[in-house]
Amino acid sequence: MNPSLEIFSQGEEVITGQTVDTNAAWLSEQVVTLGFTVTRHTAVGDKLDDLITLLREISTRTDCCICTGGLGPTSDDLTAEAVAKAFNLPLEFDPVAYEQIKRFFTIRNRDMPAANLKQAMFPKGAQRIDNRWGTAPGFFLQIGRCWFAFAPGVPTEMRHLFEESIGPTLASLFILQPPTLVTIKTLGIGESDIQQRLTAIEIPPPVQLGFRASPDDVQTKLLFPSDYPETEISTLVTNISAKLGDNVFAIDGLGSVSGDLVGTIDQLMMAGGYSLAVVETASHGLLAAKCVGMDWLLETCYQKFLEQLGQKLAVTVNKNDLFTTAKLVGQAIQKSNAVDFVLVQLYAGDNKIFHDKDQAIVLYNGLLTKDGFFQNTHSVVGPINRKQNQAALLALDLLRRYLQHKEL
Amino acid sequence: MNPSLEIFSQGEEVITGQTVDTNAAWLSEQVVTLGFTVTRHTAVGDKLDDLITLLREISTRTDCCICTGGLGPTSDDLTAEAVAKAFNLPLEFDPVAYEQIKRFFTIRNRDMPAANLKQAMFPKGAQRIDNRWGTAPGFFLQIGRCWFAFAPGVPTEMRHLFEESIGPTLASLFILQPPTLVTIKTLGIGESDIQQRLTAIEIPPPVQLGFRASPDDVQTKLLFPSDYPETEISTLVTNISAKLGDNVFAIDGLGSVSGDLVGTIDQLMMAGGYSLAVVETASHGLLAAKCVGMDWLLETCYQKFLEQLGQKLAVTVNKNDLFTTAKLVGQAIQKSNAVDFVLVQLYAGDNKIFHDKDQAIVLYNGLLTKDGFFQNTHSVVGPINRKQNQAALLALDLLRRYLQHKEL
Repeated sequence: MNPSLEIFSQGEEVITGQTVDTNAAWLSEQVVTLGFTVTRHTAVGDKLDDLITLLREISTRTDCCICTGGLGPTSDDLTAEAVAKAFNLPLEFDPVAYEQIKRFFTIRNRDMPAANLKQAMFPKGAQRIDNRWGTAPGFFLQIGRCWFAFAPGVPTEMRHLFEESIGPTLASLFILQPPTLVTIKTLGIGESDIQQRLTAIEIPPPVQLGFRASPDDVQTKLLFPSDYPETEISTLVTNISAKLGDNVFAIDGLGSVSGDLVGTIDQLMMAGGYSLAVVETASHGLLAAKCVGMDWLLETCYQKFLEQLGQKLAVTVNKNDLFTTAKLVGQAIQKSNAVDFVLVQLYAGDNKIFHDKDQAIVLYNGLLTKDGFFQNTHSVVGPINRKQNQAALLALDLLRRYLQHKEL
Repeated sequence: MNPSLEIFSQGEEVITGQTVDTNAAWLSEQVVTLGFTVTRHTAVGDKLDDLITLLREISTRTDCCICTGGLGPTSDDLTAEAVAKAFNLPLEFDPVAYEQIKRFFTIRNRDMPAANLKQAMFPKGAQRIDNRWGTAPGFFLQIGRCWFAFAPGVPTEMRHLFEESIGPTLASLFILQPPTLVTIKTLGIGESDIQQRLTAIEIPPPVQLGFRASPDDVQTKLLFPSDYPETEISTLVTNISAKLGDNVFAIDGLGSVSGDLVGTIDQLMMAGGYSLAVVETASHGLLAAKCVGMDWLLETCYQKFLEQLGQKLAVTVNKNDLFTTAKLVGQAIQKSNAVDFVLVQLYAGDNKIFHDKDQAIVLYNGLLTKDGFFQNTHSVVGPINRKQNQAALLALDLLRRYLQHKEL
């Protein structure tokens, strides 16, 4: 059985909703991959009594606890004091931590404020976790059956400390059996459709099947126990992928990580040495924005009025035949630019429909390539930001399908 | 003293980190505004015993608890059963809820699956909360001193139920003294600079001062107790705003809500009947994307190579004088379009620097108006997505400053 682990977040800004506690989710994902079972998340503000009560409770019911926040220099940073009081441990001065904190200020040409001295005080028996990214060192402490790891609440610092120290240390303290997580990423098919297609496939009981729909993709997740045979993992993933067809744009967890849709496209564009120009309407610049830093995107343009775009490109715009219009626009752009592909993202539906979450716009995407003109069409309903995002994704997905399959 | 409130989230996807629990933060922000003090957030998975234990614990220590998740139709949705077991209440069939759920399927031309029947079963004494946005009704239930409200975990449904029912009901059950929250939103000045500027201003002890830095702005937050005199609120906010100068783009909480930077610009553009064209480089389409649905944005273009943009517009590009280049580009676009303003967003720094999080790009933004040409420059360091976002924001902020002050 996996050891149990809790996440404990401290901070008035978390409890009042000023800050979304992304630390808890991030840490949970990491430790599940290591082989822990996460049993609870708790967050409280900066009341000393709450902290003491919770630390005591947690120490008796779990094998491991990662705590974030409360390690700063101000009067409402109470973690070390709460630990000392909860478990009757004196706070001790750590000269090495003190030097590190002083150095943090010295290299920034600033004097160390007196308040920061408390960050060098740890409960007796604690093992310091160095923090090269800020002034708050963390610490490990074993209380009874429970290993506590304390980290600062600033997400970047917390992540560095986890990756450099907390993760590896926990992995050495416990006998863990890391599961294998395989993620099949799709676009162009909904969660319920996926579930429907997978009913014919038998998922063996020790395998956990889950789904995660985000604005950018739908992920089918398979969690295999650590002793699950590799060949059976591979067979099951292949069978599921086959059912999902070319909606699958990437599979993570079988040795390679392919990232998101743009990452997948990037690999294919770079491998072929291709270049791309884009015309956007409903996506409103977001298609290009998603491709930031990609060398192969040469240009994009968004034009509020399709007629004006036609005038600029000397193309006759036919609003009743958006595929033909897309093709003509693509050809005009390809003629004036040395570019391999032109992706033209048009839509039917006036401005009122675009704004109305209950009405659908119809997307007409066209891709001009050396192999010819490819097209897809989709109907998208929902708030304007969803329409915009789907327009960008579904146009990019047309390019992805062409690059992966050279047929559509 | 404010009544206390806890947030309790249920879901394997929350506890394993597959989903970030944004519900807890959103609900906390709402109830703080109503006049509750949030004391704790807790999240657990779908183990019945955990749920029962926690429900019992919570019922004895807090005045109110909002629970999310576990109301779905599948076998791992256990909230109603856990409540029934925790407090020895029988589950009762609610024919009205049943009709609502059936109707949800009927109007979608689908048969109601048998699994959904359980969503019409509530613990005895519960008061149903209608859900017009999904199949999972929520419910209220008083146990001892604690009022529980149960809502589905899907964020959109949860928010609808809160706004339509849970919030108003809680406000009627408790004697609340809602505080006044004033948020001063700024761009172009960092959190530590703001704190520095505010040291000279005395903040009276009952007023809570806080800061919240997001990718899109820095917010200075003032929380006033409910009995705080309005004139003193107004004086303090005016004094603070004066210290922050024209970095302030909006103030929320004094009667009006102005929203984000684009919302502020939208009000000013619509009031003046203006139109805008944009040229983007570092922002890579994101400037236009942020303005989705805004009638006044006529066009944007992004071009990887500045020389090609110059060729298209018949403008001589001088990479050593980007402000002059921006002005010429703006004039060329204004000549070919009937547009009031042209915003040109250029930057110095090659592609390698753009990708390197430790190196800074220098933004050169130019705004061509009927009152002349205005410009600003900023140096931005960090990951590529931060550079892109800052480029979009700081260019838009040039437009905002012009519209608000007609001088820069």
